[in-house]
Amino acid sequence: MSAVERDECCAVVLLSGGLDSATTLAWARREGYRCYCLSVDYGQRHRVELDAARKLATQFQAQAHKIVRIDLSVFGGSALTDLRIDVPEDGVQPGIPLTYVPARNTILLSLALGWAEVLGASDIFVGANAVDYSGYPDCRPAYLHAFEVMANLATKAAVEGKKLSIRAPLVDLSKADIIRLAASLNVPLRETVSCYQPDALGQACGRCDACRIRQAGFVSAGRADPTRYINAST
Amino acid sequence: MSAVERDECCAVVLLSGGLDSATTLAWARREGYRCYCLSVDYGQRHRVELDAARKLATQFQAQAHKIVRIDLSVFGGSALTDLRIDVPEDGVQPGIPLTYVPARNTILLSLALGWAEVLGASDIFVGANAVDYSGYPDCRPAYLHAFEVMANLATKAAVEGKKLSIRAPLVDLSKADIIRLAASLNVPLRETVSCYQPDALGQACGRCDACRIRQAGFVSAGRADPTRYINAST
Repeated sequence: MSAVERDECCAVVLLSGGLDSATTLAWARREGYRCYCLSVDYGQRHRVELDAARKLATQFQAQAHKIVRIDLSVFGGSALTDLRIDVPEDGVQPGIPLTYVPARNTILLSLALGWAEVLGASDIFVGANAVDYSGYPDCRPAYLHAFEVMANLATKAAVEGKKLSIRAPLVDLSKADIIRLAASLNVPLRETVSCYQPDALGQACGRCDACRIRQAGFVSAGRADPTRYINAST
Repeated sequence: MSAVERDECCAVVLLSGGLDSATTLAWARREGYRCYCLSVDYGQRHRVELDAARKLATQFQAQAHKIVRIDLSVFGGSALTDLRIDVPEDGVQPGIPLTYVPARNTILLSLALGWAEVLGASDIFVGANAVDYSGYPDCRPAYLHAFEVMANLATKAAVEGKKLSIRAPLVDLSKADIIRLAASLNVPLRETVSCYQPDALGQACGRCDACRIRQAGFVSAGRADPTRYINAST
């Protein structure tokens, strides 16, 4: 590739369309970064979140928004990509949940790394959170640090001594903290999609782990929950 | 995902259809691994190598062969994926070549990691080589080690203490050494595709860096070059 000057105000932001990645994008924008948003259509059940991602990228004035398609369902192994595995609805359980997608964050961060290198971006932002998603190994700070170390050996920019940072500003926040932060950053909470199995309109099931964690977060934050639920009376 | 026992004789092998990955597959088979071959159609110019990969997977009795499609050309930045950048034909130059695909090995290894986790595989084999491809940062041993460290923090298996190994048996070999090893392992050298811009029949251009390195390797190994070249008299 041709030489690209490292740009200290340019970031790739992984944007799923969920609450956490939306808040991360808003955070990066407040910090002054020009943001290049990357969404990945990986065969997930909840692809309506990609529509939310498009709206969020526009609202937060992303420089560009790319949606890369890759079919992780060929590997199976997760309730999010394998239609033979039901999304659990019986409450958050200890351990690694069935909704864990093998190596998902590694794949998403790797794609972000490729784009960051072409752009000469200095930072990759990801909405990983180790509090509510403690069962996902690839949301832990030790994992994110190891990815950053690897990334800084992987690229042309790294060979030239320009450091890339993996930024996860929400990693230590509770869901209630994230909701408060999102509200302060004018994230349109109602438009974000957390549910693992929303309907085609983006309405949430209210029963999967992601819905339960989100609902508990609004209660804990003392805020009304604006999420559109299937069969809700309002 | 459901619990999978780590299988010490099960490996994911990244198989491009080139000489190095074919030799790596043959090596893993000789070591007794049951091999699950993964090829990635990433929008490369030389997609005919995927046909070679299919033949090689069959010949070496892969348990399965998956081809995952992901369009890295959306990011651009490489002569292999961006049709606006010509493949250099003026000889191997120092530094990182235009054919370097940003974060390619990281993306390929990440996909292999996802499948390895679903399979419970103990090893991922990759044909990375640091001798002839010293200009590619993601072929270096330090990079591969950092990926392994990251991978062992990324997965459910890692949380359970089961180590995954990233194996690059060719990393320190010269192209001549690889050709000798390939011959000893009955790799069908004529069928492997190294060229960055072969024609639709899989015939090599003879002018790109990959062709030049391959040709020099056969000369150095003292073996006849069975490669099918465009416009060759035989």
